[in-house]
Amino acid sequence: MCRWAAYIGEPIYLEDIITRPDHSLVAQSVEATECKTTTNADGFGIAWYNERPEPGLYRDVYPAWSDPNLRSLAHQVKSRLFLSHVRASTGASTSRNNCHPFAARNWTFMHNGQVGGFEQFRKAADMAVPDDLYGKRLGGTDSEVLFLLALGYGLNRDPCAALEQSVAWLENQSRETGESPHMRLSAAFSDGQTLYAARYSSDHIAPSVYYRYSETRRGWAVVSEPLETNEDGWIELAPGKMISVTSEGLREMDFNPNRVEVAA
Amino acid sequence: MCRWAAYIGEPIYLEDIITRPDHSLVAQSVEATECKTTTNADGFGIAWYNERPEPGLYRDVYPAWSDPNLRSLAHQVKSRLFLSHVRASTGASTSRNNCHPFAARNWTFMHNGQVGGFEQFRKAADMAVPDDLYGKRLGGTDSEVLFLLALGYGLNRDPCAALEQSVAWLENQSRETGESPHMRLSAAFSDGQTLYAARYSSDHIAPSVYYRYSETRRGWAVVSEPLETNEDGWIELAPGKMISVTSEGLREMDFNPNRVEVAA
Amino acid sequence: MCRWAAYIGEPIYLEDIITRPDHSLVAQSVEATECKTTTNADGFGIAWYNERPEPGLYRDVYPAWSDPNLRSLAHQVKSRLFLSHVRASTGASTSRNNCHPFAARNWTFMHNGQVGGFEQFRKAADMAVPDDLYGKRLGGTDSEVLFLLALGYGLNRDPCAALEQSVAWLENQSRETGESPHMRLSAAFSDGQTLYAARYSSDHIAPSVYYRYSETRRGWAVVSEPLETNEDGWIELAPGKMISVTSEGLREMDFNPNRVEVAA
Amino acid sequence: MCRWAAYIGEPIYLEDIITRPDHSLVAQSVEATECKTTTNADGFGIAWYNERPEPGLYRDVYPAWSDPNLRSLAHQVKSRLFLSHVRASTGASTSRNNCHPFAARNWTFMHNGQVGGFEQFRKAADMAVPDDLYGKRLGGTDSEVLFLLALGYGLNRDPCAALEQSVAWLENQSRETGESPHMRLSAAFSDGQTLYAARYSSDHIAPSVYYRYSETRRGWAVVSEPLETNEDGWIELAPGKMISVTSEGLREMDFNPNRVEVAA
Repeated sequence: MCRWAAYIGEPIYLEDIITRPDHSLVAQSVEATECKTTTNADGFGIAWYNERPEPGLYRDVYPAWSDPNLRSLAHQVKSRLFLSHVRASTGASTSRNNCHPFAARNWTFMHNGQVGGFEQFRKAADMAVPDDLYGKRLGGTDSEVLFLLALGYGLNRDPCAALEQSVAWLENQSRETGESPHMRLSAAFSDGQTLYAARYSSDHIAPSVYYRYSETRRGWAVVSEPLETNEDGWIELAPGKMISVTSEGLREMDFNPNRVEVAA
Repeated sequence: MCRWAAYIGEPIYLEDIITRPDHSLVAQSVEATECKTTTNADGFGIAWYNERPEPGLYRDVYPAWSDPNLRSLAHQVKSRLFLSHVRASTGASTSRNNCHPFAARNWTFMHNGQVGGFEQFRKAADMAVPDDLYGKRLGGTDSEVLFLLALGYGLNRDPCAALEQSVAWLENQSRETGESPHMRLSAAFSDGQTLYAARYSSDHIAPSVYYRYSETRRGWAVVSEPLETNEDGWIELAPGKMISVTSEGLREMDFNPNRVEVAA
Repeated sequence: MCRWAAYIGEPIYLEDIITRPDHSLVAQSVEATECKTTTNADGFGIAWYNERPEPGLYRDVYPAWSDPNLRSLAHQVKSRLFLSHVRASTGASTSRNNCHPFAARNWTFMHNGQVGGFEQFRKAADMAVPDDLYGKRLGGTDSEVLFLLALGYGLNRDPCAALEQSVAWLENQSRETGESPHMRLSAAFSDGQTLYAARYSSDHIAPSVYYRYSETRRGWAVVSEPLETNEDGWIELAPGKMISVTSEGLREMDFNPNRVEVAA
Repeated sequence: MCRWAAYIGEPIYLEDIITRPDHSLVAQSVEATECKTTTNADGFGIAWYNERPEPGLYRDVYPAWSDPNLRSLAHQVKSRLFLSHVRASTGASTSRNNCHPFAARNWTFMHNGQVGGFEQFRKAADMAVPDDLYGKRLGGTDSEVLFLLALGYGLNRDPCAALEQSVAWLENQSRETGESPHMRLSAAFSDGQTLYAARYSSDHIAPSVYYRYSETRRGWAVVSEPLETNEDGWIELAPGKMISVTSEGLREMDFNPNRVEVAA
């Protein structure tokens, strides 16, 4: 299990999400409270958008709490839209290519969750990645495949349907291995304009997702765990739901991979 | 606070201490039980002796649990005498030069503890390192200074007295800063023939040290925490005591830095 | 292009090949003389055999010349059979998983060469890796695929034929991309008992391989470039040849991937 | 010897200096042309200023050419004033704390050069660092000491005189060791408002420094080697000279450490 935090709104310093709040993402790398694995020390990453269509990407394999580069970057860089992640590996090796967020074209994607038995069908999953996206398959995680499959299914045209298809495909593979949980998902992703987040589980334990609008920042935070322990206004995203957030506001919709028919 | 484990006896694979026991050193890097900081993920190191007088040294800045090099090395290398350490920084940066064990000439040294206010007198501490040893001052930790001072005080001639003097010097400096605890120490060190360990505290909380002779291995383990949770025979070293261990057996002595008169 | 050096014979310290000779492997990482890319600074690795059937493996992403762990390890560890490699990337990212040697079961493999247009058919290459070996496909290099395909073709039963088939398969794919050179190969590999090396090229430029028996060491060195500039007795392996070396002696054979019929 | 490049003017993407020119800083990390050591692969760093008084700092120990974080950062981040450096170690270990630029308060500093016999008087040099700056002494390089001494001598009040004093102090120490060259210096530094560069040597070989105003960028580049091989207008800074550059323009002055009287 991992932890993540994302933001969209008026440009703020990355540190306002990543290091300054009392339960900031870096604080959660030391001690997360809403998941079994409390330590998230197997690497980290940030992806941020400014003027260019494609994001900046900074990922490394150290614990987030001890990286002076991360601290300096977060202190110096402002962004109107960014994703940040601390990793606790569920199997794949500690390597920059396995750190979230993943980026392809103008898209970025990060994930917290599990796909039971993934190692058993990793080859099939790699095969399912479209040819023109295979150059972006750099690591060995289930999360990167989830992202690339979704891109192939049309993340650009219909983000919700594309991610549902990707999740359904992987969940179906997992069911064949018999290893549960088949799918636990809390993902955030963006095309550089809209921030999306989805929460879902094939069983009854879906990884937590919260969001909140800040009047002071004039922006939305979407996170694994509330960033301030004594702060009102954090809304829990219900399992089976997805949100899309822009400067115009937030829209919630159903996220239901089960309505997808997976080809044999 | 950190965790460490050392061994002397018939050659064994490093993994018999580092990764295989149910509460091995690597397991303690994930979750230590006898100290406040449960996670020890700010680097690790091993120093091992075989035919050469000087030790092999392998240190890196990753969490010990995720480093495949460490796992492979521990699986492949046998040694008659070795020290291993997982670090939780109390201030100095995560850098190979700040990872234990430290090595100089034929000596190696590792430490778990604290010296209150060290940053305030780090310059004085560096200046106290003898000129001919200053080339070995590579990082910024209190532990490395503790080692180099002890070398200067004659670790080679009288290990107990030399370490007492080094500890007394640092404790005295710490008292002047007024920042407590002034000295908490559990250290293990070796010249390649004898394994030494000391336990001491200026207050009433001395970091734990245990030791045990294994008939199967025909060797002694000296550790921060017992390596097997259901194993008899672990003896706790009392605060204010030091041991020296060789193939001939174990000898205990008083370790009392307070009998040292520190020059103004 | 990369550089490599291997050894089989009476146990010697790794440093006798890796760091001590005047044109040692580490010296070649700074400045190789028989290839276009003189600097080989994109990582390094060593695999060594002793009592265990499987090798020890130490790989990292730094230039070999500056890694104190490598220097210490090479100074401390003895081995009867080892492979060592310094990397100059021809495309795939600098990552431990892309560093040679690669290891699977008791086998290790390292390579210097090129497969034209590999990125264009990397997906097809991955798909060609047998299912039961896919768990060992950890990086993105052509060399790792070359190794895993050869394992699948029966490296265990007939090393020469298996590597010929693997090379033929990749060369054939490369021809379809139209990007030359289709195949340049100098590879060394071992099952822990025998050391093999092969040299081959689809054009007229085959990467160099030399070997030499040392009476003093009582062992064979097989290398990209002679380890001592003023030393007699280095024999150049001709293109289209393969050698197998044991304590019993050296045997040369033809290495001809063109006799393999590649299935469409 | 190292290579560096700095910029002050209208905000530009870091990559316009670091990676895009045909002889960019990263190109120089692969193959520098105006110094003996052509490869500069022992780490790199960038320091950049925007709205905050203190700089952002990103340093790592890999060759600059292979770091995807550096490439992405340089592609994404704009700055009105930045320093960038690729390192070829002359002795001190490859460690983030030994990578340039160094930063303290609002100041940053980077250097290419040599101080003969530095390891012999490193302790004296450390002792000379003022107490209140010692917390910034994190590594073991001569360059970091040069910077901290200059800060102590009043870099804030009179940059030229302060650096002259710092250089004179180190050169004097070097003369006592008898190891030449005693001082070769090409340094660039900034307080976040003005960019300074100095060139000097105790013998007749001063490391190169060039500068050039770009009408298109509306800014000044100050560099070890011209960034474009076919570009007019690069001016060589003469040995014994220093420049200060702001948006208002460039001013040249004498840089003469020999006029400093060094206390015994």
